[in-house]
Amino acid sequence: MFTSNRVQAAPITVGRRHLARSGGRVRVVAVNAGNANCATGEIGITACERVCRAAAEHFKCAGHEVFPSSTGIIGVPLPAEKLVAVLPAVKSELAGDAVAFAGFAQAILTTDTRAKVARAAFDVGGKRVRIAGVCKGAGMIHPQLVPAGPALHATMLVYLFTDAAVEPTVLDGFLQAAVEVSFNRISTDGDTSTNDTVLLLASGASGVEVGASDTKFRSALAEVCTSLAKQIVSDGEGVGHVVELQIEGTPSDADALRVAKSIAHSMLVKTAWAGADPNWGRLMAAVGYSGVAIDAEKIAIWFGELPICARGGRAPEYDEGAAHAYLEQREYSIRIALGLGEGRCRFWTCDLSAEYVRINAEYST
Amino acid sequence: MFTSNRVQAAPITVGRRHLARSGGRVRVVAVNAGNANCATGEIGITACERVCRAAAEHFKCAGHEVFPSSTGIIGVPLPAEKLVAVLPAVKSELAGDAVAFAGFAQAILTTDTRAKVARAAFDVGGKRVRIAGVCKGAGMIHPQLVPAGPALHATMLVYLFTDAAVEPTVLDGFLQAAVEVSFNRISTDGDTSTNDTVLLLASGASGVEVGASDTKFRSALAEVCTSLAKQIVSDGEGVGHVVELQIEGTPSDADALRVAKSIAHSMLVKTAWAGADPNWGRLMAAVGYSGVAIDAEKIAIWFGELPICARGGRAPEYDEGAAHAYLEQREYSIRIALGLGEGRCRFWTCDLSAEYVRINAEYST
Repeated sequence: MFTSNRVQAAPITVGRRHLARSGGRVRVVAVNAGNANCATGEIGITACERVCRAAAEHFKCAGHEVFPSSTGIIGVPLPAEKLVAVLPAVKSELAGDAVAFAGFAQAILTTDTRAKVARAAFDVGGKRVRIAGVCKGAGMIHPQLVPAGPALHATMLVYLFTDAAVEPTVLDGFLQAAVEVSFNRISTDGDTSTNDTVLLLASGASGVEVGASDTKFRSALAEVCTSLAKQIVSDGEGVGHVVELQIEGTPSDADALRVAKSIAHSMLVKTAWAGADPNWGRLMAAVGYSGVAIDAEKIAIWFGELPICARGGRAPEYDEGAAHAYLEQREYSIRIALGLGEGRCRFWTCDLSAEYVRINAEYST
Repeated sequence: MFTSNRVQAAPITVGRRHLARSGGRVRVVAVNAGNANCATGEIGITACERVCRAAAEHFKCAGHEVFPSSTGIIGVPLPAEKLVAVLPAVKSELAGDAVAFAGFAQAILTTDTRAKVARAAFDVGGKRVRIAGVCKGAGMIHPQLVPAGPALHATMLVYLFTDAAVEPTVLDGFLQAAVEVSFNRISTDGDTSTNDTVLLLASGASGVEVGASDTKFRSALAEVCTSLAKQIVSDGEGVGHVVELQIEGTPSDADALRVAKSIAHSMLVKTAWAGADPNWGRLMAAVGYSGVAIDAEKIAIWFGELPICARGGRAPEYDEGAAHAYLEQREYSIRIALGLGEGRCRFWTCDLSAEYVRINAEYST
């Protein structure tokens, strides 16, 4: 799955072509960090293809079986020869063990402060099926992923591996369901990247065939994706607080998501969180401009179990000191009930700190 | 005109009722700063009406001829008696001179660092017609104002005064046109307030009758509103740079506005501006996720007269040092051409600084 941003990095264009040509079969994932190869025009496409061709030669596969990804600065030509030059060294380190996996997780980081991996496993008829995922992403995080379909495209990079035997079209269905409740439910800064990619690969090495109705695979994949998505928010640029939003009582689930995003993207809400300031009026304002039809007098808000707002006004039990202390935690939840229906969602986001500004304001190009 | 936020402060509810009952005639504007009287339920309405009634007694008019406004923290009951207690002092200082006007401009400020006023005048048949405006607002600034119609409501506060003789319905038309190209074209942090209000009052004291087709009045009003709108951005919380966005070449003007807002609300774009970082790839990303249909290879970007991006990639003449120096100015313009149509807009916004975070993160409630 790829970002829905309409400005499309060269590796997205090339990667789509390769997936289409190979019928979704991938032998090599070629990832670089530091340069997004986006807004680089035709020379960006040429540079990406150059890297894929060289990787195919080294790893003895067809060029279209190489899937490229890039993350980093936009608008600077990709130095393809630098990547080609390191292929022998990369090949010499090729291995199937946990150390190599950890090395890959480390190599793809940009402003991330730590590697992000997640694993799940289940048994079928005495055989073990495993799923392992690795990802990077800390800024420009508001993935809006869509299937690798006709029109759109994906700097969050996610690679999911399983030893189950699954057909590509069946994998697509599993991936869309898992992404919808994980990566499409997080935001650090609201900026949807030009390069976001989630790739799910199945080797079949377990000898276990998994079909579209397999609930064990479905839930194991959702578990891995949700873990990785939360790790991205937790390692977001300058993050001091990770917030789980629980929105409920909206006319539809889509409305609940609109409310969550309105809150998650409010600079005033996010800066209040940075200061552990229980200024819940900013939440009310963000709900009010979300575009969702509301009845302000039905709104209720809790910080964890603490009543904050009831019937649209300050809750009778409101305790400012307790609310402030609650928000001083690194991780916490905020629940908002709109009292209008059965719609709901969970969404993970973070505060906006002076450190985020420092990281992103530095004149570094 | 009032905010389109669906969470509605008590003074907005009461102010609408009063305007409806008086047919748009106002004798007293009663403004307090420090408490928004929003999310305060029925006691908020009662408190607001209490202040209006007391003001009407002091200034010898009907209660519904008093127009209330509040700005400040949301969700804290308004201490009406504190406001009522100062009415005698306010009345004793009543005057029609420039000093009193400046005093009003100063009194309504919250996190603003300076008073904001603008004036314009023109002559009709030897008689002078004057327009003067005053406003406040520095944070929670993304006004989305709609006419005082059926469903919606308004922390930017704007009061416009003219000595022209104009009927209320004619004034409405002038105001909507002027607001659309001024206050509805600015954003500091993207947060649309629950209390935004723009009030235009005409005394008729000049003896000049102004009809709906009067272009002199129309342009003088637009001049005053645009000046005030820019002053708000320039005095925005923590602002180091004021940016005029010129978007053009979109299929429609509405598309141009969507692109401008996508850029103006991007935390990555705004933090780059704080550091004078010519990271134009972030502009490309924000254009790409604006929702507007684009052709990335037709996009061109200029910083002032400096070519930055051409045909979707780095402009051949791109000079990073010159671009960085340009962005170090306090005020500058960025022009983005999408090459698809005749749509265009101008929009004013600002950087996102560590100082903004400090102002809004402080545990101050």
